[in-house]
Amino acid sequence: MTTTDSLQKLLSELSSKRFRNYGDDFLLTWEKSRDQLEATLLVAEILRELYTNNLSAKLFESGVAVSWFRDKSTRTRYSFQSAANLLGLTVQDFDEEQSQITHGEAAKETATMISFLTEVIGIRDDQYLGEGHTFQKQVASAVQEGFKEGILPQRPSVLNLQCDRDHPTQSMSDLLHLKKKFEGLSNLQGKKIVMSWAYSPSYGKPLSVAQGICALLTRFGMDVVLAYPQGYNLIPELERLCAKQATKSGGHFRITHNMAQAFADADIVYPKSWAPYGIMFKRTRLLKKGDTKGLLELERQALAQNAKHQDWECNEKMMKLTKNGRALYLHCLPADVSGVNSRKGEVEQSVFERYRFELFKQAGYKPYIIAAMILLSKFEKPKQVLRTLLNRRAPRLMA
Amino acid sequence: MTTTDSLQKLLSELSSKRFRNYGDDFLLTWEKSRDQLEATLLVAEILRELYTNNLSAKLFESGVAVSWFRDKSTRTRYSFQSAANLLGLTVQDFDEEQSQITHGEAAKETATMISFLTEVIGIRDDQYLGEGHTFQKQVASAVQEGFKEGILPQRPSVLNLQCDRDHPTQSMSDLLHLKKKFEGLSNLQGKKIVMSWAYSPSYGKPLSVAQGICALLTRFGMDVVLAYPQGYNLIPELERLCAKQATKSGGHFRITHNMAQAFADADIVYPKSWAPYGIMFKRTRLLKKGDTKGLLELERQALAQNAKHQDWECNEKMMKLTKNGRALYLHCLPADVSGVNSRKGEVEQSVFERYRFELFKQAGYKPYIIAAMILLSKFEKPKQVLRTLLNRRAPRLMA
Amino acid sequence: MTTTDSLQKLLSELSSKRFRNYGDDFLLTWEKSRDQLEATLLVAEILRELYTNNLSAKLFESGVAVSWFRDKSTRTRYSFQSAANLLGLTVQDFDEEQSQITHGEAAKETATMISFLTEVIGIRDDQYLGEGHTFQKQVASAVQEGFKEGILPQRPSVLNLQCDRDHPTQSMSDLLHLKKKFEGLSNLQGKKIVMSWAYSPSYGKPLSVAQGICALLTRFGMDVVLAYPQGYNLIPELERLCAKQATKSGGHFRITHNMAQAFADADIVYPKSWAPYGIMFKRTRLLKKGDTKGLLELERQALAQNAKHQDWECNEKMMKLTKNGRALYLHCLPADVSGVNSRKGEVEQSVFERYRFELFKQAGYKPYIIAAMILLSKFEKPKQVLRTLLNRRAPRLMA
Repeated sequence: MTTTDSLQKLLSELSSKRFRNYGDDFLLTWEKSRDQLEATLLVAEILRELYTNNLSAKLFESGVAVSWFRDKSTRTRYSFQSAANLLGLTVQDFDEEQSQITHGEAAKETATMISFLTEVIGIRDDQYLGEGHTFQKQVASAVQEGFKEGILPQRPSVLNLQCDRDHPTQSMSDLLHLKKKFEGLSNLQGKKIVMSWAYSPSYGKPLSVAQGICALLTRFGMDVVLAYPQGYNLIPELERLCAKQATKSGGHFRITHNMAQAFADADIVYPKSWAPYGIMFKRTRLLKKGDTKGLLELERQALAQNAKHQDWECNEKMMKLTKNGRALYLHCLPADVSGVNSRKGEVEQSVFERYRFELFKQAGYKPYIIAAMILLSKFEKPKQVLRTLLNRRAPRLMA
Repeated sequence: MTTTDSLQKLLSELSSKRFRNYGDDFLLTWEKSRDQLEATLLVAEILRELYTNNLSAKLFESGVAVSWFRDKSTRTRYSFQSAANLLGLTVQDFDEEQSQITHGEAAKETATMISFLTEVIGIRDDQYLGEGHTFQKQVASAVQEGFKEGILPQRPSVLNLQCDRDHPTQSMSDLLHLKKKFEGLSNLQGKKIVMSWAYSPSYGKPLSVAQGICALLTRFGMDVVLAYPQGYNLIPELERLCAKQATKSGGHFRITHNMAQAFADADIVYPKSWAPYGIMFKRTRLLKKGDTKGLLELERQALAQNAKHQDWECNEKMMKLTKNGRALYLHCLPADVSGVNSRKGEVEQSVFERYRFELFKQAGYKPYIIAAMILLSKFEKPKQVLRTLLNRRAPRLMA
Repeated sequence: MTTTDSLQKLLSELSSKRFRNYGDDFLLTWEKSRDQLEATLLVAEILRELYTNNLSAKLFESGVAVSWFRDKSTRTRYSFQSAANLLGLTVQDFDEEQSQITHGEAAKETATMISFLTEVIGIRDDQYLGEGHTFQKQVASAVQEGFKEGILPQRPSVLNLQCDRDHPTQSMSDLLHLKKKFEGLSNLQGKKIVMSWAYSPSYGKPLSVAQGICALLTRFGMDVVLAYPQGYNLIPELERLCAKQATKSGGHFRITHNMAQAFADADIVYPKSWAPYGIMFKRTRLLKKGDTKGLLELERQALAQNAKHQDWECNEKMMKLTKNGRALYLHCLPADVSGVNSRKGEVEQSVFERYRFELFKQAGYKPYIIAAMILLSKFEKPKQVLRTLLNRRAPRLMA
């Protein structure tokens, strides 16, 4: 199949996805229709195909993409910057004090002040349960108001680069990886994926990757098993959402507290650490009160609680339990590899090494997923825009 | 009126502004002729019109804009970055240690080293009375020398993003806001504007916004009233300059120490805090000596002095004194709003809220004002350049 | 000679340089053939000529240049950013903790994660003897593996922006400066250049500038004299390399411990401080052990050792010894000027002042040298690409 054929095929698939409006923001995958999600994957694939064929995907002659990180990040920050660059936008980092929880009017004023020539605002705010999504909605409502009042000449899209509830750029990249590995979304129907807690000696990892994965994959008819030790549940409302979605999509959603049982006959495993729900909940309250002593005590408790579950490791023994002993192993990276960056961690070194290149490929979809979200939120007729790009045939790198 | 008509009208107004040379730098508004200032507003309006009509204003295929901030900034930093991006320049942040006052040869060498492919250097250096403007002139003279000696292939423009004397990108944005609100600069003649000190519990705010506003608006025949408690005077030489300029332009310039009297029948009010002159003066000397203890004592004094003037608040009672009780309220943001970010502040919450959207619009002109200053300093025939942009009709965002 | 003529001449000179492949990375000048080095100079000259004639050298419509600094930098960081911008790439800063020596798998994973849409990675890692070059090779091997495995759609070039062994963007800029001053590389044959240690009250300056200069200029038939006090030798293996290269190119390489003797009849002098070899060696070991106390003691020793050689200053008396008392003075900047930024330093103020503009010109070649390295590593047919640029005649700044 020639490049043009393959691109034409993706474009005609894109035509079959029906939605009136993609929406200005991408905050939670469960606010998007299945067609919107599938369109996002297709646009990402098209952009990747253009890139690898040295075709420029520049859609903006000028314009700003604000990168607003309230937590550290290498991968997602880089992916956002690269996605913006691919489309012709220039990134401006906006750095606040990390520890501050600034909400309300001050955040809304700031959001407007950095939006006059801004096309997209990517936000990571994942440290405090009950806070991150709320903050992102405040920013979205501020720029919506600014646009409506004629203060902003355009409506900047707000993109969730990880909040306390969801991590859509991660889960959508993971989904694209699965689509490629299983040769089509329809082949995911009935496949068993285990989103499992795993041990890590670190503290305070967000719940949003696990929540995002379960909430997304229950949309696609998969047999989703969520495994964690008692006390490591996700936001209860989201666990209920997953169950409801699974029923609707013809899949399953089960919760278990036994890692080995969960791994049995799994097609895909995603073992990853997160903090105990109760502790994350208390943490936000202590932080708001500025109770430094209480926070230190809480960290001690959390680490002690984690230490009881060092057997939740994705090792060769566990992998043997999976389908033909060869389940696909996923991780959002960086992983805590036992004996490498910690004595005991999420995964045994030999398992991790065997999947290293697969994991890197999984990560490599993120820039295109982000670019697709930007494109779809900014252009009403994405298919037409992509066709114009294809016909223009402007080389990205001078030929 | 169609877009093209409206743009043609602005372009033909621009033709009527006469000046031989805009100058390489924009350091102080009082170094510019009235025609140069009016041309700046017109170019800003044209660039905004191009933007809102999705026409690219890209003038540079490559080139660097250095952002040199010696003090914190969100708004002006963002505005400078956006302006550079609009014209096709890429911003490079240059970050020194904030507290250092590096002048002389080291600063001149540094200025040259960051200018080889640089089109514009935007500098904020506003913390030390007697220092900021001097530093900006040193940078300008260094790049001038570098250009003359054939070291730099082009002369980078130096742009004042706030110094100890003036804040021209702010005052010019404010003037554009007034031009729009009062439908033309000629309608500002005789209008009463009050630049008033206001209480804030914070320390060390520069005098340059107040100085910049008085020095600019006395050029346009306005009735400028400067109000402050005893001890909060501006740089004496600049107060004298304002008086002289007012006479020349057919306006007035008065100083009063009574906020209520100042507000009486005002068309526009600009209540904003700044530090006591004497204290700002001492501060520079203590800082140069590295007298940390003296600086702490000075801060204590300043806050104590401020605390005596908590009644200098722009509240509803004050606003009632203005013309029809409906003066236009201005602020450069962020404002200290009583009961919001401080117990007592510059402005009562209900007043601030009523003008919130107007204030955001005021702020929104800054990127275009900065872009206009860059354009005018880099291109000898601005009208021709803008006409080319208009005729080119390249979409900013792919249509 | 018209611009086009001068550019045509450079282009036809470029044709005469023969090499099959420039290589993906530029880590050490001694890994490059003489034709590859000369081609680098020619491409730099062509890019500079295009720039001064307002011709755009934009080769990339999108693409990322990662700026990975493990040590402070103003000049080289700016030069890398400007070079990337000139060619159409967008810089992304990657900032780790400076003190960390992260090697091995973590560095390789990180290198891949920041390379999905990356064309070039510029790295400074110059603080630890035995580490910097090793690290740069690890990054190069990581992205090579990523490319081979289909994880990265392109092979990012790795560019040495100073390591523990070489500083090729500096030495190549210096060589271009010499080519211009002596009107051709062939005129460097037999010219005497002194790379001399000089006193500085600072600690821990890398050896790589001195190593880079000696290793590069012994390739061009020069009479290279390396002068330093006992204990300040370079990496022994590199001193041997210089001797071998000098023989091969028909030049000379000598080591002396007497500054005055070295300066006698020199055409060019390059007096610059670096840390004692033995101490730099111990430093890496103490750092890896985290021996803070040992490091402080080592610093004390190093400064005490330096203090014995305050007479190693490039002063007027020394300069008088050079050919006609008028040797060309070189420095990579910033220099420690006696009585300016230190009581006693590398150079007397009057000497430094006399060469100030020459030094700035020397520094001004670096952005073009870096751009040339990027261009040559990314394009298989550089001459054709440059000819296309010339024929395209796209103005950099709108005409």
